Amino acid sequence: MVTKLETMNKEKKEIKTNLEYLKKLFIMPDSPDKFVEFGHELLEMIHDFFNEKGGIHSSISLPELSMIFDRTAIPDEPHLIKDVLGEIKEKVTAHSVKVGNPYYVGHMISAIPYFMILMEMIIAALNQNQVKIETAKASSFVERELAGWLHRLIFNRSERYYQKNIQNPRVALGNVTSDGTIANLTAMMVAREKAFPSEEGFSGIRMAGVDSALRHYGYERGVIIVSTRGHYSIRKAANMLGLGEENVLNIPVDDNNRMDIQRLHRKIKSLEKEKGKTKIIAIIGIAGTTETGNVDNLKELGEAARETGAHFHVDACWGGSALLVDEYRPMFEGIEEADSVSIDAHKLLYCPMAMGLVLFRNEKDLHYLMQTSNYIIRRNSVDMGRFTIEGSRPFASLKPWASLKIIGRDGYKLLFKSARENTDSFANILDGCGNFETLNVPELFIVNYRFIPQPVQERIFQLEEERKTSIDKEHQKELARHLHKVNRIINALNIKLHKAIRMDDTTFVSRTTLESTRYRPQNIVVLRAVLTNPLTDRDILKEIVETQNRIGGELWPEFETAIRKAANRKAHSGEGGSRNAEVGRSIARSKSRKV
Amino acid sequence: MVTKLETMNKEKKEIKTNLEYLKKLFIMPDSPDKFVEFGHELLEMIHDFFNEKGGIHSSISLPELSMIFDRTAIPDEPHLIKDVLGEIKEKVTAHSVKVGNPYYVGHMISAIPYFMILMEMIIAALNQNQVKIETAKASSFVERELAGWLHRLIFNRSERYYQKNIQNPRVALGNVTSDGTIANLTAMMVAREKAFPSEEGFSGIRMAGVDSALRHYGYERGVIIVSTRGHYSIRKAANMLGLGEENVLNIPVDDNNRMDIQRLHRKIKSLEKEKGKTKIIAIIGIAGTTETGNVDNLKELGEAARETGAHFHVDACWGGSALLVDEYRPMFEGIEEADSVSIDAHKLLYCPMAMGLVLFRNEKDLHYLMQTSNYIIRRNSVDMGRFTIEGSRPFASLKPWASLKIIGRDGYKLLFKSARENTDSFANILDGCGNFETLNVPELFIVNYRFIPQPVQERIFQLEEERKTSIDKEHQKELARHLHKVNRIINALNIKLHKAIRMDDTTFVSRTTLESTRYRPQNIVVLRAVLTNPLTDRDILKEIVETQNRIGGELWPEFETAIRKAANRKAHSGEGGSRNAEVGRSIARSKSRKV
Repeated sequence: MVTKLETMNKEKKEIKTNLEYLKKLFIMPDSPDKFVEFGHELLEMIHDFFNEKGGIHSSISLPELSMIFDRTAIPDEPHLIKDVLGEIKEKVTAHSVKVGNPYYVGHMISAIPYFMILMEMIIAALNQNQVKIETAKASSFVERELAGWLHRLIFNRSERYYQKNIQNPRVALGNVTSDGTIANLTAMMVAREKAFPSEEGFSGIRMAGVDSALRHYGYERGVIIVSTRGHYSIRKAANMLGLGEENVLNIPVDDNNRMDIQRLHRKIKSLEKEKGKTKIIAIIGIAGTTETGNVDNLKELGEAARETGAHFHVDACWGGSALLVDEYRPMFEGIEEADSVSIDAHKLLYCPMAMGLVLFRNEKDLHYLMQTSNYIIRRNSVDMGRFTIEGSRPFASLKPWASLKIIGRDGYKLLFKSARENTDSFANILDGCGNFETLNVPELFIVNYRFIPQPVQERIFQLEEERKTSIDKEHQKELARHLHKVNRIINALNIKLHKAIRMDDTTFVSRTTLESTRYRPQNIVVLRAVLTNPLTDRDILKEIVETQNRIGGELWPEFETAIRKAANRKAHSGEGGSRNAEVGRSIARSKSRKV
Repeated sequence: MVTKLETMNKEKKEIKTNLEYLKKLFIMPDSPDKFVEFGHELLEMIHDFFNEKGGIHSSISLPELSMIFDRTAIPDEPHLIKDVLGEIKEKVTAHSVKVGNPYYVGHMISAIPYFMILMEMIIAALNQNQVKIETAKASSFVERELAGWLHRLIFNRSERYYQKNIQNPRVALGNVTSDGTIANLTAMMVAREKAFPSEEGFSGIRMAGVDSALRHYGYERGVIIVSTRGHYSIRKAANMLGLGEENVLNIPVDDNNRMDIQRLHRKIKSLEKEKGKTKIIAIIGIAGTTETGNVDNLKELGEAARETGAHFHVDACWGGSALLVDEYRPMFEGIEEADSVSIDAHKLLYCPMAMGLVLFRNEKDLHYLMQTSNYIIRRNSVDMGRFTIEGSRPFASLKPWASLKIIGRDGYKLLFKSARENTDSFANILDGCGNFETLNVPELFIVNYRFIPQPVQERIFQLEEERKTSIDKEHQKELARHLHKVNRIINALNIKLHKAIRMDDTTFVSRTTLESTRYRPQNIVVLRAVLTNPLTDRDILKEIVETQNRIGGELWPEFETAIRKAANRKAHSGEGGSRNAEVGRSIARSKSRKV
């Protein structure tokens, strides 16, 4: 009798030694049965994943996961596809983060349309490499068309301009990049080359390096100016480009998280006073800060850049796609005068991870990066690899290209309207609850807030009011110290709350630290919700706030005594005790109120 | 009566204004019917694409393609998914390059196993962002496990080492990158930071920039050493990192396309003589040059790097995966002593475009790049984004992870055996034909050759022989000039041949220019075949050579007179005429010989 084990071993042996078996893997099966069978299995797997009850992050601990993925060497023997799919289902899918879950409103990631999966199938099947026309034919044209569309959306040059340039391989309206970081890096690299070009007696920063460039042009350093809200990719770019992170000058923001224009001008003036020691390479405006979703005053920033001769880049990785809706255009006023703009497709274009775009107003700016090589991108070729930081690149552009057709501007308009409504709802629900303080004026779908029981909020306002109106400097200082201490405790409370929300795992928001709230210059820990998932609705948002209010209430007693001490040391009247009793009542109230 | 047009308009209107319709796109359909229906359509499309007779590149001209993709603005109205799929089929798929076609042996791209399409479906559906554990849970562990596997494959440290580090989030054995260029860039960036670290009174190159770093350490420049076969990404990295392309020092190669070690040592000595003006940041070995597939003497390069205190990087983007087969290990001797090694998954691991890996021998080297940010990768977090150049990153690591299981080392062994056999076959067929000259000793599946009718080959050998043996210096020079001229014409012939092969479009090889053939220092135009597609076999290779021989023969008469002049100006005997008649006969012979 042949045992099951023997059969399995035989099967394994067969795939082990057989090139014919392997070759078959490389051919799209003639009868699609096998493929469709796997496709069905996959769909079920994906379904299970999305419909599974329970946590957003799966309850497994990180040390437990370590033990699942602890194989230290590559397997020798081939495994059957269905076995590996089973393993993926059990080990990977089961413990993946449900980033598309409507209760997951914590990061710039959302549900994506299912047709994106179809697009990925096409991209993989065609397997074009965008670096070169010999490995990417129609796909090169798709990519250029897409870049043209977004260029027009931003810079809105003439129809004639686009007719002339959209498929002109001698120029490049922009690059499709791996992500926003590489998009920003591309822009900064172009800015750097523009700042220190080649000329008589100097081969250019590209050939000679930063050191020689500074020396040749008589500068001591090159700087990049961005607000304190600047994405960390800017610092990374300054490091990478050899300028040094110290030479990213962060200008403080106003209460709306926008670069303080007065301070920008002061900074520029002080740099000018250094008698040409500093070259301002770029000024960066942000169109949708990562932390707060606010948009810089791009018009003023652009003017400042032009006055100083700096490259004006707009990091619109988050918000740029909102230009698809005319109503948002005023928020971006001035973006059309930027030298370059970056946009992420995996953010508001709802594409899967990951794809960035960087567009250049001047179709010749990317010539600063132009490179050639004998075997891959010959001089005078029409290969897109001439202009990109990456070498081999996938045909990722198909996703936003198809999506802009399938959803259309009209569709994106509806999606952004929904995001806007969810943002407003969420802020309203938080305000209505009473135990949360909202801390930004949301522009592009991001709400910053913190848990802080209503009576404590009132107490803080009282302390603030008293501080502002007091004429006794010593007393003012004392009050400021108290406020500081209270906020420190509230910070700790919100860090703990965030961890508890993660443990609870039925809802998810993220957390950051801001210095631009009403408590500046103190850093305030805030919870951060990003409300772009079209599957999220008002009821879900209510549940999210209720959950967080409940968990906050449970944590509160632990912080109560400390807050009482901090808040009342100043209040010589000794009313602290009753205040804190009041806090407990307030939480109970808002719990029953069901926000 | 409702006309068809009215129905269509109604349908369009419906999708135009309906958020509910859009929302449905974001949900995996409860009944998978719709999805499977699209899946079927896609499979058919993919099938048609692979089975379609006719050209590899599609016969459409680039200007014609320009006219297909000439829409200059984003569509307003939503389109039906099936319409867009139809459009993709008609415009995109039909005009894509059949890179998986077994007659396409021109670039480092091949057919891929069809299960890769399944993997892309999973990756898109899960849509994890590897930047952060909050957006990527199990997938972070998969990526680390994969990095561990390849780290072990290269550096082969102890089992204990991998048990300790493979899932230790405090360290990083390597990064998964967008592609090989970013992998090499990551290695060069680490090398740069290591060369100019922070110390008392200096904040490090990262903070202070290249200029301050050189000044602080008393250097005038930092250089990267690589052979003339170095990939253009090295130049790109030197530019990007602010070192300057001029500071990539290219050491000439020997006849086997390996860095000339004597010349390396001479270069190092001459740099040392400059009295510490030059800091050697990195020495790079190549394990599989892009143009010729040869492997540097890694052992010697590693020793040189250690002696000079430089970072030793091995660019194994092409060849690294061959380590999966023990028989190839001797070719890579010394790689285990490298500081870093880069490998591309979309090359010899047969993954779709695009994914690179960079592995660091020292698990703490990536700490030189460590970055944090409040909202995304907090200090003390376990987020992978701390170490990467990119920010948002897809879960690309699933593809090689699954593939190393499904194919296994044993399977890859068979695939590489097949590639080896195809490489040998191709070289044999070329040699057997008589009208081709092979120009490298293939190590890793790449053959360089050129079309050159047999009698001309013989004539060249004759001229060479005569030049070597002649004692008359003037005569030697004269002969060299002739040789040079002949080669120039043969270069032109091969450029024309390559273009004609592209026009014919039934087979495809690439083309480059090398200075390391037997005709050095003259640059020789070579055709380049990359023989890794497991669907390519000996019969196909014969057809490829026959086709190219036929086309070459057709082009030959155009070059005949010029060659005769060049080759015979020296031959005072005037035998040129008959020689060239001989050429014609030889081509006719080898045509009938059917290689």
